[in-house]
Amino acid sequence: MATKADRVKARLPRGFVDRAPDDLRAAEKMMAQIRKVYELYGFEPVETPLIEYTDALGKFLPDQDRPNEGVFSFQDDDEQWLSLRYDLTAPLARYVAENFESIPKPYRSYRAGWVFRNEKPGPGRFRQFMQFDADTVGAPSVSADAEMCMMMADVMEALGIKRGDYVIRVNNRKVLDGVLEAIGLGGDENVGRRLTVLRAIDKLDKFGPQGVRLLLGAGRWDGGKEGEGDFTKGAGLDEESIDTIMLLFTHASDRAPDFFMQMSPDEVMQDDALLQGGQSSQPLVIANPRFLDVYEERFPQASLFQEGLNELRQISSLVRAAGYGTQRIRITTSVVRGLEYYTGPVFEAELTFDVTNEKGEKVVFGSVGGGGRYDGLVSRFRGEPVPATGFSIGVSRLMTALKNLGKLDTSDNIGPVVVLVMDRDTVSLGRYQRMVSDLRQAGIRAEMYLGGSGMKPQMKYADRRGAPCVIIQGSQERDNGEVQIKDLIEGARLSAEIEDNVTWRESRPAQVTAKEGDLVAEVRKILEAQAEDRANASKGQ
Amino acid sequence: MATKADRVKARLPRGFVDRAPDDLRAAEKMMAQIRKVYELYGFEPVETPLIEYTDALGKFLPDQDRPNEGVFSFQDDDEQWLSLRYDLTAPLARYVAENFESIPKPYRSYRAGWVFRNEKPGPGRFRQFMQFDADTVGAPSVSADAEMCMMMADVMEALGIKRGDYVIRVNNRKVLDGVLEAIGLGGDENVGRRLTVLRAIDKLDKFGPQGVRLLLGAGRWDGGKEGEGDFTKGAGLDEESIDTIMLLFTHASDRAPDFFMQMSPDEVMQDDALLQGGQSSQPLVIANPRFLDVYEERFPQASLFQEGLNELRQISSLVRAAGYGTQRIRITTSVVRGLEYYTGPVFEAELTFDVTNEKGEKVVFGSVGGGGRYDGLVSRFRGEPVPATGFSIGVSRLMTALKNLGKLDTSDNIGPVVVLVMDRDTVSLGRYQRMVSDLRQAGIRAEMYLGGSGMKPQMKYADRRGAPCVIIQGSQERDNGEVQIKDLIEGARLSAEIEDNVTWRESRPAQVTAKEGDLVAEVRKILEAQAEDRANASKGQ
Repeated sequence: MATKADRVKARLPRGFVDRAPDDLRAAEKMMAQIRKVYELYGFEPVETPLIEYTDALGKFLPDQDRPNEGVFSFQDDDEQWLSLRYDLTAPLARYVAENFESIPKPYRSYRAGWVFRNEKPGPGRFRQFMQFDADTVGAPSVSADAEMCMMMADVMEALGIKRGDYVIRVNNRKVLDGVLEAIGLGGDENVGRRLTVLRAIDKLDKFGPQGVRLLLGAGRWDGGKEGEGDFTKGAGLDEESIDTIMLLFTHASDRAPDFFMQMSPDEVMQDDALLQGGQSSQPLVIANPRFLDVYEERFPQASLFQEGLNELRQISSLVRAAGYGTQRIRITTSVVRGLEYYTGPVFEAELTFDVTNEKGEKVVFGSVGGGGRYDGLVSRFRGEPVPATGFSIGVSRLMTALKNLGKLDTSDNIGPVVVLVMDRDTVSLGRYQRMVSDLRQAGIRAEMYLGGSGMKPQMKYADRRGAPCVIIQGSQERDNGEVQIKDLIEGARLSAEIEDNVTWRESRPAQVTAKEGDLVAEVRKILEAQAEDRANASKGQ
Repeated sequence: MATKADRVKARLPRGFVDRAPDDLRAAEKMMAQIRKVYELYGFEPVETPLIEYTDALGKFLPDQDRPNEGVFSFQDDDEQWLSLRYDLTAPLARYVAENFESIPKPYRSYRAGWVFRNEKPGPGRFRQFMQFDADTVGAPSVSADAEMCMMMADVMEALGIKRGDYVIRVNNRKVLDGVLEAIGLGGDENVGRRLTVLRAIDKLDKFGPQGVRLLLGAGRWDGGKEGEGDFTKGAGLDEESIDTIMLLFTHASDRAPDFFMQMSPDEVMQDDALLQGGQSSQPLVIANPRFLDVYEERFPQASLFQEGLNELRQISSLVRAAGYGTQRIRITTSVVRGLEYYTGPVFEAELTFDVTNEKGEKVVFGSVGGGGRYDGLVSRFRGEPVPATGFSIGVSRLMTALKNLGKLDTSDNIGPVVVLVMDRDTVSLGRYQRMVSDLRQAGIRAEMYLGGSGMKPQMKYADRRGAPCVIIQGSQERDNGEVQIKDLIEGARLSAEIEDNVTWRESRPAQVTAKEGDLVAEVRKILEAQAEDRANASKGQ
């Protein structure tokens, strides 16, 4: 035993958390639902290790400007640098490149796993979190991107998030890159500045258009006013360039209609239902005339901008044909995604209902996942073009969302039947052990009490474990070849003396005496009666 | 795209592996089975992060003599040392100590997760592997240890490993520690030497009694003869001490009967069946008179040795009372376990069937998991005694074992229905996309081909994906409002022209033409016919 002086403090490093039973069981169910959708789409599971060579992962994190930050790295005994993966996309690129000849292409795959960020943790921001990704490698056409968007929508609905509570927003990096090219930020020499612009735009939801304008220009004070909080240096663009970029977003808001359709918010809400009935409410025309007036004439037909616009048009028409309306999948210019490696369509699954944040403000829940096309990531290894697209779901964040919606089902977590220990001689213990074994063999969750003696702590334990009933056999019962079975749920109900009309029903006995040989049958009867009560109670709600 | 010069090599660090679909699906099923048993025993899930403070994990690995080896460690930005966990027991101890007041005690919990060893990898020896643990904290009595042993046995059978192909071997560190005390190796000052002795004995299966004698004495050459291979320094004991220790193992072999029962191997094989019928074949007497002659008189009744022996006696009697005979749970002195933190009963799940090792030799498959009592681990944090016992299953190793036994079920992995792309205009693509959506909505795994054009690569792809059928709609079928459905399984059967009596049956058409509106119904018919064929084929085996 440790003396006080050399006692180790039991604590976790910042940004790491333990996960409790209810969360784990709910996560398990949630992941199974997601997996089912991925499988339905023909995706195959694959898993890569948590550690990779640092150079194989590359540096594509938002904070790449600060070298050696963002990832946990350490040297192997042969001096090579290893890192914990920071996402599941970079390792997939390594996997595909390494096994290129042996996998069928196009290659659809999915995988769930822990990823790590060596960052400053904050509320809801962890250094270890789980992602659940799907990717298609070797498919150059936007059909693959359209499929990703539909699959994300299907995942949301499979988890019980109803239509209208989520939307898959779609954009294309080429549209934005085309604009940046036009204002003189094209070419390899401007990679850094383009990234600064991207990250500024990514903050649209957080800081609003005015905040983004500051980040595109001279910079922004965290506190909102000069001198308040930290200063973030901006991209240093002039007013005219900023105006050109911002025009992309003047029509974009969370509830904005589809970019390619002239629809009112009300029409959007109906669109999915109409499409499913086979009568699309709107022709596939390009709307937002203001946007087009300004841009279409400035960008020639073959430009990057027009290419991006055409791809978005195709995605829109493919998903509409498959019955996904603007309520579910919406083309909008405000999605950017912070990661550097995207080269084409980008998408984001957003939950549109309000929640209260840690400051007590009502805010839209926001993104629970996203992704896009990353045609350059596998090419890093192969030296030949390998198109790829995919998305990532933030499992922990999605869990929080489902909790908010009351969609985390934990109703079927039943505690174990507890066999109490009345006598502690080896023969008695053997007898209790046998009862527990019999119950388990009948598929009933059961345990023998393993703590200290006394009736009170045993009953308290059974209560804390949520035991449906306890089994008691003292010397008297033993002599009669009997056991007492205490129904804890009915017992609690009776002692609460609830007698209102809705929940009233004839009471069961809260304690029965049974022959030892009938133990399993009697316990099963009680469990079934309790299950029926639960079913009635949830029907009555 | 990367030029050849700055291209990154796609490769994994030594000791790490990717996992393929079949393995993952099988692992998923296996873990679900294990989880079911743990839940049945009343255990609750909990999960801790993969990174902990290095001092919280402690250093209990077999190679602890070399500081900073064995674990992957790195410094946090506040200079504190962090490590990737090397097992799931040390983090559990930290978790229990940190949440001591809020968890019900005794606390039964289980958890699966990756652990890491910064060791030299070898065949079947990885630097990242998965463990699936169960632990009970706060239960001082051997009832908890007995429960662990029974649960391990139940896990083996739930996985389809039949009685006789596995055995749970049980020992007690106190028995061995008692012997070591008697030969003058007691006390804190001899911790290191005791550990060397433990690890020597742990090699009994590998090197035989002669090899262990060398490791207890001067040392042993890896090649078996002087000067051959590396030299491992021994514990330096004299011959008499070695004799005393080795006597513990003179009766112990893999097939040895229970330590407390005088039974022949034949009787052992029947014991479980007899016990289950309520007629235990043997009274609970201490057997092995030779052992007792020498030891019982040397160790006074209150000694550590006798305490250990008594605990084993109790475990034996508890598991027998619950119907677990010597075929399933066997008390034997040869189990040691390499980890330092065990303080009482130790146990090991061993698979007893033969496999061929990498040198082509027949060997017993061996351990797939084990554990024991570790009463000191939580006390490191708490400064008060906190008893605990648990075991760990090596998931990857168990997978290998199940593969050897042909128990890894992958029969229900069906490839997706592939909708071929005959025309690539947006309207046609939308139509194909709609077909895929309809199939998926009906719960049928389906995908649209996303690769390059041409009939041949599409059919080749469908074949590699194990597609049950493909859907074809060219311009002619489209004009008629029809689709072609090609049954690939029946097609392969017909082209193989199998006509023997067992598998012969009337053939189905390998290709049907269906109205577009009947697509889902027709595909379902084909899938059902194929499922029936598979069921018949497996019945015919």
